Amino acid sequence: MGDALISIIPDMKRRTVQAFVDKAQSLDRPLLEKRLKPLSLVHVAKDENGNAIVTEREDIERMPDKLLRKGDRVCMDFGDHYVGHVTLKLDSAGSPQDAPAFLRLKFAEIPGELLDDSSTYEGWISKGWIQEEFIHIDALPCELKLPRRYAFRYVEVLAIDTSAKFQVVVQDAELTAVSAVSLEDAEPIQNLPEDLQRIDRASLKTLQDCMQHVFEDGPKRDRRLWIGDLRLQAKANYATFRNMDLVKRCMYLFAGLIRDDGKIGACLFTEPVMQVDDTFLFDYSLFFISILYDYYQETKDLDIVKELWPTAFRQIELALDDMEDGVPKTENPMMAFIDWKDGLDRQAAAHAVWIYCLRQGEVLAGLAGDEKGENQVHSLLSDAIEKAVSCFWDEEKGFFVSGESRQISWSSQAWMVLADVWDREKSRTLMLHLLEENPEVGVSTPYAYHHVIEALLHVGEKDKALELLRTYWGGMIKLGADTFWEAFDPEDPNASPYGSSQVNSFCHAWSCTPAWLFREYFSTM
Amino acid sequence: MGDALISIIPDMKRRTVQAFVDKAQSLDRPLLEKRLKPLSLVHVAKDENGNAIVTEREDIERMPDKLLRKGDRVCMDFGDHYVGHVTLKLDSAGSPQDAPAFLRLKFAEIPGELLDDSSTYEGWISKGWIQEEFIHIDALPCELKLPRRYAFRYVEVLAIDTSAKFQVVVQDAELTAVSAVSLEDAEPIQNLPEDLQRIDRASLKTLQDCMQHVFEDGPKRDRRLWIGDLRLQAKANYATFRNMDLVKRCMYLFAGLIRDDGKIGACLFTEPVMQVDDTFLFDYSLFFISILYDYYQETKDLDIVKELWPTAFRQIELALDDMEDGVPKTENPMMAFIDWKDGLDRQAAAHAVWIYCLRQGEVLAGLAGDEKGENQVHSLLSDAIEKAVSCFWDEEKGFFVSGESRQISWSSQAWMVLADVWDREKSRTLMLHLLEENPEVGVSTPYAYHHVIEALLHVGEKDKALELLRTYWGGMIKLGADTFWEAFDPEDPNASPYGSSQVNSFCHAWSCTPAWLFREYFSTM
Repeated sequence: MGDALISIIPDMKRRTVQAFVDKAQSLDRPLLEKRLKPLSLVHVAKDENGNAIVTEREDIERMPDKLLRKGDRVCMDFGDHYVGHVTLKLDSAGSPQDAPAFLRLKFAEIPGELLDDSSTYEGWISKGWIQEEFIHIDALPCELKLPRRYAFRYVEVLAIDTSAKFQVVVQDAELTAVSAVSLEDAEPIQNLPEDLQRIDRASLKTLQDCMQHVFEDGPKRDRRLWIGDLRLQAKANYATFRNMDLVKRCMYLFAGLIRDDGKIGACLFTEPVMQVDDTFLFDYSLFFISILYDYYQETKDLDIVKELWPTAFRQIELALDDMEDGVPKTENPMMAFIDWKDGLDRQAAAHAVWIYCLRQGEVLAGLAGDEKGENQVHSLLSDAIEKAVSCFWDEEKGFFVSGESRQISWSSQAWMVLADVWDREKSRTLMLHLLEENPEVGVSTPYAYHHVIEALLHVGEKDKALELLRTYWGGMIKLGADTFWEAFDPEDPNASPYGSSQVNSFCHAWSCTPAWLFREYFSTM
Repeated sequence: MGDALISIIPDMKRRTVQAFVDKAQSLDRPLLEKRLKPLSLVHVAKDENGNAIVTEREDIERMPDKLLRKGDRVCMDFGDHYVGHVTLKLDSAGSPQDAPAFLRLKFAEIPGELLDDSSTYEGWISKGWIQEEFIHIDALPCELKLPRRYAFRYVEVLAIDTSAKFQVVVQDAELTAVSAVSLEDAEPIQNLPEDLQRIDRASLKTLQDCMQHVFEDGPKRDRRLWIGDLRLQAKANYATFRNMDLVKRCMYLFAGLIRDDGKIGACLFTEPVMQVDDTFLFDYSLFFISILYDYYQETKDLDIVKELWPTAFRQIELALDDMEDGVPKTENPMMAFIDWKDGLDRQAAAHAVWIYCLRQGEVLAGLAGDEKGENQVHSLLSDAIEKAVSCFWDEEKGFFVSGESRQISWSSQAWMVLADVWDREKSRTLMLHLLEENPEVGVSTPYAYHHVIEALLHVGEKDKALELLRTYWGGMIKLGADTFWEAFDPEDPNASPYGSSQVNSFCHAWSCTPAWLFREYFSTM
């Protein structure tokens, strides 16, 4: 288990900036809907390596012939990952239905979830995330319109019990898939090799399925707007779907739903009421600056910079509360997120994020005409760069070190490179040194892998970046991924930040970035 | 486990007599609705005898203060048994709800069901009968309007999982109780001793809760119209609620939904389509005659006798297919129902039911002006009485015996007495002999107990009848019954005809008869 991120602030005071929330609401659009049918029936089992795979396929036309007695099941394959609402047409066969049919429905993003046994779940986040329903049907035939939204490719119907007299038949199933965008909206990319095309397709699908009424982190879990994910999603969206309104809506939501002192939360809820969560992360609050900066680079919309700069600047002021002697405090090991990596010391990387965002903040202050702010940010930035070297650089080891234990991690190096603490050449040397030395504290999520790869691209190491991307994202493709996962450890297919992979999200926003990196760095391949 | 009653007739041909079905439909009335709130919170545990009882009670006003974390529960007591639809008002407490709440709801007619563990259920009828739901709630607060109807007094809400950040709160609950009748409609009865008043109240409640769009056997299970139950319900209804239309509707349904040769089924379904089940029982088909006879005695409605006599007469003709040499065949031990009693030989009792119904049939034939039919029935009746003596009476033992094993059972004696095979005095001697000898093959359901008690009353043994009624129905009251049960063995509180008491019905039509017997035989106490 990684470090648990559970923040509870009793009686936290919230503030709503109604003008921003109203703007966010006016940018909400109806989702695009697509009606789909299952393509085949599948059987899933473990292969010789212990990986769950589809072992048999049957024509979907045969589904109504399957008469489900107690313990029988059918599993439908919709052919790709989708997010949406399912309606089943159920019937009975045999003698009249003399008892309620008792069914279990499983919705699975990957085949492995079909083999999971939820009764054994002992993770530390809610079991409620497992996409499984237990349903009594009093009278068949019926149309079972499920009220909840699911993220899945496979739907299994198990007859927990019928009676000796009747069997359950799944006549038909229909999915209404929803997203803010259509795959056809994405900028195509030419001349990619076959394996990268597959990675690109899965990246696009991941991003598409996470784009709903907000940018969600994962449509299975947590189904909500996290600012760390949003930053990467927005960047990938600029390179692909270019749905600018959705980014703008999410920025207004974060700016409109804040802690009473103006602090932006790590995530927020839109259902049943809009409110900011009581989770705050040093890096995540600062990323508001970064998102606004990136949005400006794409749109040159100066009005929104002027409108939201004060909110962004406030994050810089408040970040200082979490710093001491010019560097992030260390008493709370989860003060910044950075990665789920077990035992990661986050101080150095958090400091690098601070520099990264200050650089962008200085530009925004200039654009907004806030001379005083610009000077303040400039001064903080100079001090921060100086501290990065004096407090975190270990000349002898040739690495940035973090915390009292002077930990050498991949994330610390990657973020210091992205923060341009050294010039490009020295950063390049650092990244090559990192690959060569391969310090023990590596990265454990696509989110952190992305920052390592982005750092390699930042210093011009395209080949090394591509190699890592191929190994990591390609590793998921090799395991049958249609969309990219929240967590993937090539050494351990059951890795989970939550104590059980049953609640892992297998379509997770922060892993959609290859689609952006391909278009930005590899479009001429 | 008793003898399993599972009849499956592949490709059974059904016939609909539309005119009868139309009449039945025109007699369908909207149910009476009553809105109710839970009265208290309860805790249930086993007492020193292993019986589940309410051990603690709390003010219902405290319910919203209970913050349900993972594994916590609240149990509401509605103060009496009801049938209806439940709406829960749910909320969350603590930090924002960051995961779906996963709840289990249990609806219990008696406290014992709250302690049952459905995962251990291994009975031979569907697990789907257990009144339990597993529900995910994505967004709290919400009003959870449950779509199914339940029969219960207690509702337990268990938080299977929430998250570390939030708790579930049950703010409020509302029940819309439904029935075709109101308790206030029942003829009151004066001067009953306290203990019998309690039995009378529970009998009325049982009958009320089984009176829905049809007379149901049990509102928990099977929730449908069985003719054996209907016969007793109609009699109890004449003495109490006097809802004549509901009886008439049910007679028309049985007459209108038949096997293609005219045979009336043991039960029928009204949802989602009206159809007769493929279960046929010798005694149950004949009871159509008895129900029509009783209805005429109450209403003097000669038109319906003339209209339905041909259907009734057809049951006599078809019963002959199940007879050989003038007595019921024995190859199918469940050809007639009689009782769930383990190992019961049903032949003698079935023969007695044949006589019982022929007597009533002869009267109906006369009323209908069917001289030919009257003669036929008369001749069958003479032969049947003669056979009752020659084939089933054992002069030496002083009992009716049944089957090749010449089994002596309570049910055989009771039904032969009700069939007036002997005159009243000889029948009285037989019943006293039965009580004295107490043969091993007794009775195991309130249905069969009723016929023993009715036989005692039939021969004038009111004190003995009342003693038995007090012991048996009073035994359920002592165990806390609000309504009377489908199965009750004073020696074994977990007795079930289905291999597990979890699917037993604890409000079962066939046990409602004390309300009728009190009014018919004990109204001057």
